[in-house]
Amino acid sequence: MNAVPEALTPGRKDHTGRSVAPFPGSRKTYVEGGRPDLRVPMREVELAETPTSFGGEENPPLYLYDTSGPYTDPEAVIDLRKGLGDVRSGWIEGRDDTEVLSGLSSRYGRERAADPALAALRFEHIRAPRRARTGARVTQMHYARRGEITPEMEYVAIRENSRLQEMRADPRYGTLLRQHAGQGLGAAIPAEITPEFVRSEVARGRAIIPSNINHPELEPMIIGRNFRVKVNTNIGNSAVTSSIDEEVEKLVWSCRWGGDTLMDLSTGRNIHETREWIIRNSPVPIGTVPIYQALEKVDGRPEELTWELMRDTLVEQAEQGVDYFTIHAGVLLRYVPLTAARVTGIVSRGGSILAKWCLAHHQENFLYTHFDEICEIMEAYDVAFSLGDGLRPGSIADANDEAQFSELRTLGELTKVAWEHDVQVMIEGPGHVPMHLIRENMDRELAECYEAPFYTLGPLTTDIAPGYDHITSAIGAAQIGWYGTAMLCYVTPKEHLGLPDLQDVKEGIIAYRIAAHAADLAKGHPAAQVRDNALSKARFEFRWEDQFNLSLDPELARSYHDATLPKEAHKVAHFCSMCGPHFCSMKITQDVRDYARERGLGTDQAVDAGMQEKAEEFKDQGAEIYKPV
Amino acid sequence: MNAVPEALTPGRKDHTGRSVAPFPGSRKTYVEGGRPDLRVPMREVELAETPTSFGGEENPPLYLYDTSGPYTDPEAVIDLRKGLGDVRSGWIEGRDDTEVLSGLSSRYGRERAADPALAALRFEHIRAPRRARTGARVTQMHYARRGEITPEMEYVAIRENSRLQEMRADPRYGTLLRQHAGQGLGAAIPAEITPEFVRSEVARGRAIIPSNINHPELEPMIIGRNFRVKVNTNIGNSAVTSSIDEEVEKLVWSCRWGGDTLMDLSTGRNIHETREWIIRNSPVPIGTVPIYQALEKVDGRPEELTWELMRDTLVEQAEQGVDYFTIHAGVLLRYVPLTAARVTGIVSRGGSILAKWCLAHHQENFLYTHFDEICEIMEAYDVAFSLGDGLRPGSIADANDEAQFSELRTLGELTKVAWEHDVQVMIEGPGHVPMHLIRENMDRELAECYEAPFYTLGPLTTDIAPGYDHITSAIGAAQIGWYGTAMLCYVTPKEHLGLPDLQDVKEGIIAYRIAAHAADLAKGHPAAQVRDNALSKARFEFRWEDQFNLSLDPELARSYHDATLPKEAHKVAHFCSMCGPHFCSMKITQDVRDYARERGLGTDQAVDAGMQEKAEEFKDQGAEIYKPV
Repeated sequence: MNAVPEALTPGRKDHTGRSVAPFPGSRKTYVEGGRPDLRVPMREVELAETPTSFGGEENPPLYLYDTSGPYTDPEAVIDLRKGLGDVRSGWIEGRDDTEVLSGLSSRYGRERAADPALAALRFEHIRAPRRARTGARVTQMHYARRGEITPEMEYVAIRENSRLQEMRADPRYGTLLRQHAGQGLGAAIPAEITPEFVRSEVARGRAIIPSNINHPELEPMIIGRNFRVKVNTNIGNSAVTSSIDEEVEKLVWSCRWGGDTLMDLSTGRNIHETREWIIRNSPVPIGTVPIYQALEKVDGRPEELTWELMRDTLVEQAEQGVDYFTIHAGVLLRYVPLTAARVTGIVSRGGSILAKWCLAHHQENFLYTHFDEICEIMEAYDVAFSLGDGLRPGSIADANDEAQFSELRTLGELTKVAWEHDVQVMIEGPGHVPMHLIRENMDRELAECYEAPFYTLGPLTTDIAPGYDHITSAIGAAQIGWYGTAMLCYVTPKEHLGLPDLQDVKEGIIAYRIAAHAADLAKGHPAAQVRDNALSKARFEFRWEDQFNLSLDPELARSYHDATLPKEAHKVAHFCSMCGPHFCSMKITQDVRDYARERGLGTDQAVDAGMQEKAEEFKDQGAEIYKPV
Repeated sequence: MNAVPEALTPGRKDHTGRSVAPFPGSRKTYVEGGRPDLRVPMREVELAETPTSFGGEENPPLYLYDTSGPYTDPEAVIDLRKGLGDVRSGWIEGRDDTEVLSGLSSRYGRERAADPALAALRFEHIRAPRRARTGARVTQMHYARRGEITPEMEYVAIRENSRLQEMRADPRYGTLLRQHAGQGLGAAIPAEITPEFVRSEVARGRAIIPSNINHPELEPMIIGRNFRVKVNTNIGNSAVTSSIDEEVEKLVWSCRWGGDTLMDLSTGRNIHETREWIIRNSPVPIGTVPIYQALEKVDGRPEELTWELMRDTLVEQAEQGVDYFTIHAGVLLRYVPLTAARVTGIVSRGGSILAKWCLAHHQENFLYTHFDEICEIMEAYDVAFSLGDGLRPGSIADANDEAQFSELRTLGELTKVAWEHDVQVMIEGPGHVPMHLIRENMDRELAECYEAPFYTLGPLTTDIAPGYDHITSAIGAAQIGWYGTAMLCYVTPKEHLGLPDLQDVKEGIIAYRIAAHAADLAKGHPAAQVRDNALSKARFEFRWEDQFNLSLDPELARSYHDATLPKEAHKVAHFCSMCGPHFCSMKITQDVRDYARERGLGTDQAVDAGMQEKAEEFKDQGAEIYKPV
């Protein structure tokens, strides 16, 4: 029931029993920054040579942004019981503005730590918590505003660039770097993402680096519309089932498939212990909705929630290392009745908890009235705000209504308050929105929340496909990502129907990596299109293995191919199952291309100058352009 | 290997052994038009009453557009060996402009009919072909331009309306008809789709009703941007495998899940016989790419293709009842070299066949030079053009290039020629296109092809997800559908990797029904949002069965739900597995709503007037808003 994780080492396996190894054809590499303890992981995909029939040339390796953490590094020793290695402690200590506490500040945290009944569940190597020295602010925004480039900022700059500068300097990448000009609708991604650019975006509040000082295992990443579009995954047990090791397994799995951050939305038993296990083993930022746990502490009765209880919960989680908190401080008492005429009322769990509290007490939302005090906690640990959209629409009919946009205005007001504390902020967005109303969400968010990064759930573009809401929402997510949303919260096929299992998590992530990448292409992120080009070149040249290895899901691509053409020989054959060996649409082009190149012709001249000659030559050869290799 | 279909009657089953019966909670109904032989099928979904805790009210039935044909009508007798019943012969005969021929006009058709070796494969009940009387044009466009409203036009008008007028007159539908104003980017869908509107759109060339006079089994449908966005599915055997009964099974399956038209892209053996089986059992328009079969006739050697051979193939297929032909007449000799510098050259099979022919002969594409003669065949049977985009981009890098747009301009020129013959035309579009370049495709198509309906493959918005191209392309399809594309050609998860099986066909169709419906919502199709509203209302009120039955895939939605909450009792329970029974975000709203209604308050007043009172009342009741039902 509450089994704790086993060691993943030495022969670490995923849920199917396969080894959690690098992806096929790939190896983990690190790019070192300005200090030896700053090593940014990347995935290097090795590619085969172009066959001579297609012009024979070397294909240089590709470097991909890598969220998978040490789990795909065969050199790393992974023991889930000990947690991941330390990435950031040296940087945090180096800033000399924090202190290690002698014990937990949270009353609840101390109770849990002292409870012998929890010994079997408890993570064994809990560090003493770290907090800002009195009067200090330890947020990335604070440093950025002071003009300071932190190692975290340098790290994300290197990460976002994905060796783009080296590729540009290397003639082998030539045509692979061909790229459409983007159309960012307000985004302005520079050709090279420098540490200084990162700093300026963080200082401006246009990007955040969620990085709690109590999460030193973190591999830093940045969320902002002038960077790669990010994907968040949600996991979490409920009252019903799911043990700690299942949740940790989902975390590792989520990182493997491309989740950039992860929210632990557990509502069942042992939330505190589950979270510790997750954070200690997480290379990605962890977010939570603290009100869920607060509600557990009052046995699910919203009206019994108090600020004191909430405060203790925030401190408890901040000292564990949660990197961002969803706080539904914009659900104001006067907005609640605006939801009455909706088709689906309030669908956010956090939103409805607060709405119930407001109605029961006929008082203003205590997260709103205590917002300054919340900021004081956030700034002492560098927890970022994810200002929750408790009144987001739960159906197409309710999209873009007064309840939703009223709350958004309040989130803008709160953004200003948080920024006065140098606390990093992102803004949560909907929900269910038909395509033609998506743009308005982005435009209003930018205007009313001062360009703080937008973080949306989908949006789902229709209500009629339960079981396929990863698709209904990937359509909306791609669009709003293009318009400027910085992070997309994934939706799994089980949305509205049940809790996702590992397969659902994977399908949700891949649908969202597709949406995010499509948005990066449309915005013109300088490191995006090279992957499409490399894969398409591999496809054209029938380098099947490279095509698989460059894809988002190499194993699935391979298995689909093998279902029709199972033999090993077919993976090097210059045809595929769609047209069969006899005739293939990919091949004609190579001849045209060769012809033009041989004669040094521009494409226009090729017809005039020599097509007649060519036509004769073809017929002489029996018009078999491609000889067997 | 080439097994022919078994009878589906009396206990007809689909591939999983389940009965091909109506969807759960649904029954087939027919709306009669102005003549007794004009009966338009619809799917009626019966809905449960709203539970009293949510205000207890009747939920009237919903009427859905139904592509599934007689296969979901328990009253219909289905025998695949005899083909479907006759829908249109009375209408066609009534026009008195056709004649029944004594035999096939195609030499090849006669050879196949006379070959005793094919007896076991041959459909047994082949009708004598029908053709226009000399000098007559029998196209829907011809009638429309003469000001004539055909039964086909009346049929599609009733079908598109989906009983919307009756719903508007029925107060029970009240809030369900709530709808966002669309933003059609040029589309102008009227509040009621009348037969006269259909006629005017067909006359104008802005919509087509593919309906070969030799396909009387057809249930007519319309393709145009002021109508419901349609979805095409591709099936077809290849040299590798797939027998006739598998193809017919895919047809029935495609109709069941929402395919509006179907293209038979067979390239293997017995194309002629396979096609006969498909058309005789198809309630939806059938399209083909005749050059595929022509190529088979010359053993796969493009350079041996001749106009005479192609002509015979067109007549052969027209007399079988094919409703539209993809004709790659825009692949001109001078455009071929424009593809030389592409990353993926020519990826259309038809396009590369013609390119190879042009190069081998150094002559202009014979489909272009004989286009008038092709039109003469089309007008004699009412076969519609689907003008093929043989130079569509096969990768993000190649999107919107000179090769692609040159061909598009030629397709516009050919559209004018076809319209001089009163032949219906749609235009095929890409392919692989990043999001920000999609709009240009639509704008150019409308401008250069005179608003002939656009019919696109996707477009795929990234190249990096083989195995998930139903998703990469649904993103682009939804967008281009919103912009005005009339029909979306589906992409299955096997795209680029292999041939789709039944499960792939289903996944492709559902992804595309999602895209098409999302586009209808965004365009403001008057009959679209009612389904979303009805489903969301069911969701809010925990009417699980109704939620399943209104979804695109009732069985899958139910199975996902049951995976977490298997018991029958849970399907009537007012909670779901995400939050558990203890607390649910859906419930708070009902209380707010009840409160306002009881006091006759507008939503704004509700707070001022009585929230304090309400707060007291809540606490008195122990703040348990929802008593067990």
